[in-house]
Amino acid sequence: MLEIERKFLVKNEDFKKEAYQSFHIKQGYLNSHPERTTRIRIKENKAFMTVKGKSSESGLSRFEWEKEIDLKDAEALLQLCEPGKIEKTRFLVKSGNHIFEVDEFYGENEGLIVAEVEMNSESDQVLLPDWLANEVTGEQKYYNSALTQKPFKTW
Amino acid sequence: MLEIERKFLVKNEDFKKEAYQSFHIKQGYLNSHPERTTRIRIKENKAFMTVKGKSSESGLSRFEWEKEIDLKDAEALLQLCEPGKIEKTRFLVKSGNHIFEVDEFYGENEGLIVAEVEMNSESDQVLLPDWLANEVTGEQKYYNSALTQKPFKTW
Repeated sequence: MLEIERKFLVKNEDFKKEAYQSFHIKQGYLNSHPERTTRIRIKENKAFMTVKGKSSESGLSRFEWEKEIDLKDAEALLQLCEPGKIEKTRFLVKSGNHIFEVDEFYGENEGLIVAEVEMNSESDQVLLPDWLANEVTGEQKYYNSALTQKPFKTW
Repeated sequence: MLEIERKFLVKNEDFKKEAYQSFHIKQGYLNSHPERTTRIRIKENKAFMTVKGKSSESGLSRFEWEKEIDLKDAEALLQLCEPGKIEKTRFLVKSGNHIFEVDEFYGENEGLIVAEVEMNSESDQVLLPDWLANEVTGEQKYYNSALTQKPFKTW
């Protein structure tokens, strides 16, 4: 129930050639407060409710709780969410023992591509692919919940 | 997924003699925004996550979605909730074909007792027990989510 991850921008689209899987994600927030976000996500034909706490001081760790929910329920709950939905394609890329999740955003966040890697501990060593650019771990403006309120195109 | 109910204050504690069951409830809110509350509730040894929308214009109907969750998860999620928890005992009382849920509040809401009855439709006729006082259906200050922000003792 603790999520430990690093987040990066990307330099180019080379990650697409290396991706072994990709899927469409649509999500909204019942609550985008950074101390306790509640997210409704539809990932292809599955749906999830996810609660996240605020980041630790290092920015690396964050409480996370997730439960699969009924797809029809998720559609109804998405209607109830705060204005501003996120739509993106997620690409999965292997790098050493880790998997990078690279999100290409659409709509009001078109142009933004963010890569995340989940780790087993804060000291976990990650092999960083060439196509990564600046690290943005812990920067709240890159939270998906923040992107619903202040989308990339308005930056 | 639509909750239709009426809510009343009570005149006296006669409902306790008529109650066929009672249990302890502790709950908090990940989000107490009246348009989309997300509640974590522990009811004796079971736990639930509940999302409610805002009331219809009549004040009688409200979107509701509920899912049972793990008790340990609920304890962790309660820690994450907004400040202000609700503690109460709920008494169940039969009246005709309906069941009244009567909540006696503690802590910052001590002194408040509220009776709710769930109906099958907005026109459903309910037999009203003698111990009911004023109807407060749809009054937002009686929402449990509102009581975490502005508890009864501060009124």
